[in-house]
Amino acid sequence: MLKMDAARSVLVLVDYQGRLMPAIHGAPAVVEAALVLADAARALGVRVVGTEQNPDGLGRNDEAVRRRCDVTLSKMHFDACSDGLAELLTEGRAPGDQPAVVMAGCEAHVCLMQTALGLLERGFRTWVVETACGSRRAADKLAAMQRLREAGATVVSDEMVLFEWVRHCRHPQFKAVLNLVKRRGS
Amino acid sequence: MLKMDAARSVLVLVDYQGRLMPAIHGAPAVVEAALVLADAARALGVRVVGTEQNPDGLGRNDEAVRRRCDVTLSKMHFDACSDGLAELLTEGRAPGDQPAVVMAGCEAHVCLMQTALGLLERGFRTWVVETACGSRRAADKLAAMQRLREAGATVVSDEMVLFEWVRHCRHPQFKAVLNLVKRRGS
Amino acid sequence: MLKMDAARSVLVLVDYQGRLMPAIHGAPAVVEAALVLADAARALGVRVVGTEQNPDGLGRNDEAVRRRCDVTLSKMHFDACSDGLAELLTEGRAPGDQPAVVMAGCEAHVCLMQTALGLLERGFRTWVVETACGSRRAADKLAAMQRLREAGATVVSDEMVLFEWVRHCRHPQFKAVLNLVKRRGS
Amino acid sequence: MLKMDAARSVLVLVDYQGRLMPAIHGAPAVVEAALVLADAARALGVRVVGTEQNPDGLGRNDEAVRRRCDVTLSKMHFDACSDGLAELLTEGRAPGDQPAVVMAGCEAHVCLMQTALGLLERGFRTWVVETACGSRRAADKLAAMQRLREAGATVVSDEMVLFEWVRHCRHPQFKAVLNLVKRRGS
Repeated sequence: MLKMDAARSVLVLVDYQGRLMPAIHGAPAVVEAALVLADAARALGVRVVGTEQNPDGLGRNDEAVRRRCDVTLSKMHFDACSDGLAELLTEGRAPGDQPAVVMAGCEAHVCLMQTALGLLERGFRTWVVETACGSRRAADKLAAMQRLREAGATVVSDEMVLFEWVRHCRHPQFKAVLNLVKRRGS
Repeated sequence: MLKMDAARSVLVLVDYQGRLMPAIHGAPAVVEAALVLADAARALGVRVVGTEQNPDGLGRNDEAVRRRCDVTLSKMHFDACSDGLAELLTEGRAPGDQPAVVMAGCEAHVCLMQTALGLLERGFRTWVVETACGSRRAADKLAAMQRLREAGATVVSDEMVLFEWVRHCRHPQFKAVLNLVKRRGS
Repeated sequence: MLKMDAARSVLVLVDYQGRLMPAIHGAPAVVEAALVLADAARALGVRVVGTEQNPDGLGRNDEAVRRRCDVTLSKMHFDACSDGLAELLTEGRAPGDQPAVVMAGCEAHVCLMQTALGLLERGFRTWVVETACGSRRAADKLAAMQRLREAGATVVSDEMVLFEWVRHCRHPQFKAVLNLVKRRGS
Repeated sequence: MLKMDAARSVLVLVDYQGRLMPAIHGAPAVVEAALVLADAARALGVRVVGTEQNPDGLGRNDEAVRRRCDVTLSKMHFDACSDGLAELLTEGRAPGDQPAVVMAGCEAHVCLMQTALGLLERGFRTWVVETACGSRRAADKLAAMQRLREAGATVVSDEMVLFEWVRHCRHPQFKAVLNLVKRRGS
């Protein structure tokens, strides 16, 4: 339980939307990290779920994010659990068999945080990828990460996710994952 | 319990007083955040309670803060609970029905912190809005926020309060709250 | 228990020694904060206990610190509890009646931290005054404060101590304490 | 249990490897701190265990590190526990008699962190020496230290280790340890 496990994980990408992203602090690096996570998930067979807040008003998710999602949930609540996310994550699974949620999104202190809190309230093991989260104001993002830690989430970086999902250098997807690390640069 | 709920909240604004504010680090942004909180509270039907430390000596609260408060408690102790705040917050409620307190004020490490600790000692669920708190020295404010976290408070930003109080974009006051966010700027 | 109480407190000042202080990061402000604490303690009837690490080698405590101490304990262990501090703090008290320890000193990550850990191991309620602690390297001090928090100490600032010890503005020593705050400046 | 004890400690140095170190942020200070730890361990009779990740690919450990290790474990998993580290640390000891692990290494957020989490999962008391850990990106190291704290490790500095291992200034190795502190400089 202290490390992320690809076989039990689902990746949730929250609200990387067209009319929101230009205002996000450090948006290009945030989106790039989200894409790295999504590509790693797809290489390793981890399901990718997107959400979009009021897409008629805020636009769809960044197109590169959107096409990497297996499904995208439309929502009106900031907390996607109030619009069915928890049910979407557990459909077709045995009762009590909750996936571990690796998640990131925007704004870090609104939709991402409220969704993470909703998942924690429902008992999901929740990992938040700080490097792929963004807010308009950097201080709001920092406050959200601290609050999520206290609420029971584990805050991680995108590289932590990749290297925990593969675990060892003989994994058949190790080279693919290493290339993702290199692509993102430093 | 992980998110703030407008229906259960009361807003407490501690000691934004005339002879104190000029010495506070970043005072204009601190007061502006307090006003945003108070306006959101009023739009959403959340009661607003102010406190003033020894007003004969330190002056009354900032006038814009004061006129947004439903009631203002005068006190001589740094911890307003020693001058009746807890009773003021629970008057007219069933025994054991404590409101959740969303609070901010000055100085962050003296009157705001001691009052928050007093509320925590009395079992109140306590949220401290960091962006609306101020001390003369920035380091004192940081130390207070960390200590309050360890004592059981949840430290939040003003935007977190607003978006948790409305919860979704179809709330009748959503546009009013969004305008408050825009008014404050970044 | 969430606030410091003058009636139950003892102030412990660890190793402000002549041959050590010139190497301490920010030494003048550290000593000044220690003197403010000691003067407040004396005004409020709080006992002040000093310690000196191997005084034949490192010299005596700063003279201004030393003359404010009711007693100064000489020690060879970095943790003063290994040289009798706990017994010194409880002598003449009923069994189980431990004072609450408000403490500060140098180096923050060696003698101050080891002594605080020793007190925590013995069940003392322990408050560490960050602004009156120093290490040669600033990063070591920060690491010590974080570690002390996790071990159960509460990290505070000197002003927090003063305003919790007096509690309200009608305390007979309030003006004296306020003058100490002003003397120290910002 | 709040302080490190030389008699119960083992030092584990993770992956200071030739093809990895040039990319590490602040590598010279990281290696220097590791050498100080290793020299102190050797002076005090603390066993030193090294690990190397896929040495055919990443090269051997820094030669100065390597020759201070009593044994060096080759591994393919990022978590050395998946390649036998826990058994190596407990071999020849009574069941349940686990040593306390003082550890550091690279990258802080990959092999060092995963190995520390593996040890924590197996019940080892784990101390992580931040100053002797490195990642390519400084933010990844910080995130790893925070996550390790939450998982139950205690994060320390190299000087903390040295002064807790000797405990007092009459220890026969005190002067040797003090010289290590001076050698490293500030």
